[in-house]
Amino acid sequence: MNIPRTSYPRVVIIGGGFAGISLAKKLGKKEVQAVLIDKHNYHTFQPLLYQVSTGGLEPDSIAYPIRKIVKDYPNFYFRMANVEAIDTENKSVCTDIGDLAYDHLVIATGSKTNFFGNSEIEKHSMVMKTIPESLNLRSLILENFEQAILTSDLADRNALMNFVIVGAGPTGVELAGALAEIKKGILPKDYPDLDIRRMKINLVQSSDRVLPAMSEVASEKAEDYLQKLGVDVWKNLRVTTYDGDWVQTNGAVNFKTATVIWSAGVKGATIPGVDGEELITRGNRILVNEFNQVKGFDDIYALGDIAAMQSDEYPSGHPMMAQPAIQQGKHLGKNLIRKIEGKEMKPFSYFDKGSMATIGRNKAVVDLPKFKFQGVFAWFVWMFVHLFFLIGFRNRLVVFINWVYNYIRFDREARLIIRPYKKRKHMSSQ
Amino acid sequence: MNIPRTSYPRVVIIGGGFAGISLAKKLGKKEVQAVLIDKHNYHTFQPLLYQVSTGGLEPDSIAYPIRKIVKDYPNFYFRMANVEAIDTENKSVCTDIGDLAYDHLVIATGSKTNFFGNSEIEKHSMVMKTIPESLNLRSLILENFEQAILTSDLADRNALMNFVIVGAGPTGVELAGALAEIKKGILPKDYPDLDIRRMKINLVQSSDRVLPAMSEVASEKAEDYLQKLGVDVWKNLRVTTYDGDWVQTNGAVNFKTATVIWSAGVKGATIPGVDGEELITRGNRILVNEFNQVKGFDDIYALGDIAAMQSDEYPSGHPMMAQPAIQQGKHLGKNLIRKIEGKEMKPFSYFDKGSMATIGRNKAVVDLPKFKFQGVFAWFVWMFVHLFFLIGFRNRLVVFINWVYNYIRFDREARLIIRPYKKRKHMSSQ
Repeated sequence: MNIPRTSYPRVVIIGGGFAGISLAKKLGKKEVQAVLIDKHNYHTFQPLLYQVSTGGLEPDSIAYPIRKIVKDYPNFYFRMANVEAIDTENKSVCTDIGDLAYDHLVIATGSKTNFFGNSEIEKHSMVMKTIPESLNLRSLILENFEQAILTSDLADRNALMNFVIVGAGPTGVELAGALAEIKKGILPKDYPDLDIRRMKINLVQSSDRVLPAMSEVASEKAEDYLQKLGVDVWKNLRVTTYDGDWVQTNGAVNFKTATVIWSAGVKGATIPGVDGEELITRGNRILVNEFNQVKGFDDIYALGDIAAMQSDEYPSGHPMMAQPAIQQGKHLGKNLIRKIEGKEMKPFSYFDKGSMATIGRNKAVVDLPKFKFQGVFAWFVWMFVHLFFLIGFRNRLVVFINWVYNYIRFDREARLIIRPYKKRKHMSSQ
Repeated sequence: MNIPRTSYPRVVIIGGGFAGISLAKKLGKKEVQAVLIDKHNYHTFQPLLYQVSTGGLEPDSIAYPIRKIVKDYPNFYFRMANVEAIDTENKSVCTDIGDLAYDHLVIATGSKTNFFGNSEIEKHSMVMKTIPESLNLRSLILENFEQAILTSDLADRNALMNFVIVGAGPTGVELAGALAEIKKGILPKDYPDLDIRRMKINLVQSSDRVLPAMSEVASEKAEDYLQKLGVDVWKNLRVTTYDGDWVQTNGAVNFKTATVIWSAGVKGATIPGVDGEELITRGNRILVNEFNQVKGFDDIYALGDIAAMQSDEYPSGHPMMAQPAIQQGKHLGKNLIRKIEGKEMKPFSYFDKGSMATIGRNKAVVDLPKFKFQGVFAWFVWMFVHLFFLIGFRNRLVVFINWVYNYIRFDREARLIIRPYKKRKHMSSQ
């Protein structure tokens, strides 16, 4: 990888998400040689991917060049690579651009979509964990309507306008809400020759409430908002399979649809070499101690979604979201310096800032540790918080302008099929 | 295509570029049934594609949804399709989504890259006529530097940092200038472990001056600007072939490079059925009379780049750029209404508003019919004119903000490899 060895200890960070970047910022100007590896050359602000999929934001304004983040750090290296394995024997990371020795290794690979072993669902459904995936979904949604115009078969047309979102966590709820707003504000004007009332947005949740990780009141309010927006919420319903045509469930209802978006679960993105049975717990996460050290290793750490730091308060680890990743990244930054300086590391303690989700314009739910609120104010809080955590002044400004514009104009102008997702079938002429 | 026949005559427009959109706006609220066909669901503002390729602008802010442009037109239909042929016998357009009968047909398919029959250059070089092509180039440029870091072979590394732009028209000149500014302002910070001085930007022009379509003074000034920016300008040099490794020329110099951008020429994007020898003239353009009527057809018209309206002033047709396309589109709009109302059509006359090109910050050249100027003021004029012709308030605002930001910060933040263009080769570890 053309990275010279120096007198500084080398810290290799795998993953440029919230955890990896927070750690990088702490180590940047310290006396360590840090190497950040990511398969993309940019950091992705995942909480807003659903707005890319629904044409509300440009992909480029929720992505930020990693090299720009680290450019002022004297001993910092970035490499764009896929990590294939970790050789803990020889303390080396194996990637598609070669191997790299480490003194300290930090695994911040985050999470990936969990299909719970259902390969048929995996084959036919869309996911939304990366920008390319979100753009594929954006293309598919629009291609479906372009195709719906052309087909004279009513069942086919309805299937093209039928959207099934599996999983009512924040991603599923926010996507369902955004689709409902497009249905109301944009599609009837864009497709006057389609009966958009036939468009259906189904949100399927296996448990008895949406946003199960949030408070009861948030769940109730969110479901109320979704219903007001015209989303069909299906609770206590489990999707068993999808063959690209029909969604089968464990209930009485099945769905004929061209589009299934799978947001029913994530699992840790483990790497061969540090994925031994004794290390892995629920959700395919790596067991770590209170210093984020991987069980049984003194020099390997795991952060964020991939790390399960079990405690009495969080028996199965912290929630898989941005805040624990950011806080663990910052904390490990300080701890690594301490360790390198021969000092004691300090245990991590998570400060729960709460959680939130937006359903649509003026409709959001916020759970703070002390109190919970919903509605317009919650919506403004949601926007402010997301702008705050976006990286980069330009990104913040462009996102803000898009939000103001979309709000005033009830519009979403990035409804572009830049790269078609599917080849449209031949249609009979008329 | 599910388009009902009405009592209104049907005008089919092929192509949603400057010409097609200008025409559409004229016909939108008139008593005709207009059908616009384009292979994309958006209009592309081609003059700014080079800024997408060089990370200065998001692709979405130079694209505009065609359905949004036409949504208020009562008798207007848009179809996303590839036109495969025109059946002039039966007055029908054949597409990949079926056939469509027309009463009046308007061909506004614009131009495509002209490799002058050199299939090897076509196979190995990059072009920049569409947004996907521009994004591919953006990815390739960045991937080249990521790869250059990894290779220890100096010749390979230099080839990865060597850019050969063939053709010094506006596209070639503007791209060369933008690359030179990235070399100066961004790459040294992004790639501290590369010697960016080794990066070369070669602009190859077969004739004796850059911007040959503009005035002598513009050419001289533009070349002067390019040289100041560190671009190697090669005049009277013709690229004969490129095998993906070496560029061969008719001169003493050859280039070892990983990237050739071909902007040496365009040709009309003709469609089978209206491409008979007697119709086609220089540059593969369709001969039209002063009403934009295709030679020998009363009901088929051609507009913009694809149309060659020969006159004493323009013996080989109007220049292949935005202005003639826009003016012909508007004019034909009025003429078609006249014709349908049984009135005489009026001959088109081109109002030359001049031409301009930007080389870099504060560096542009403007040729107006009356007078010519260069430098800072020209640069502001260039920006104002391009903002003015961009479609959509949001696009203008976002582009403007990006320009202000890039100007103040000497930055270009869209340096993102969203979709890698090439698989990077395996590199030896180190």
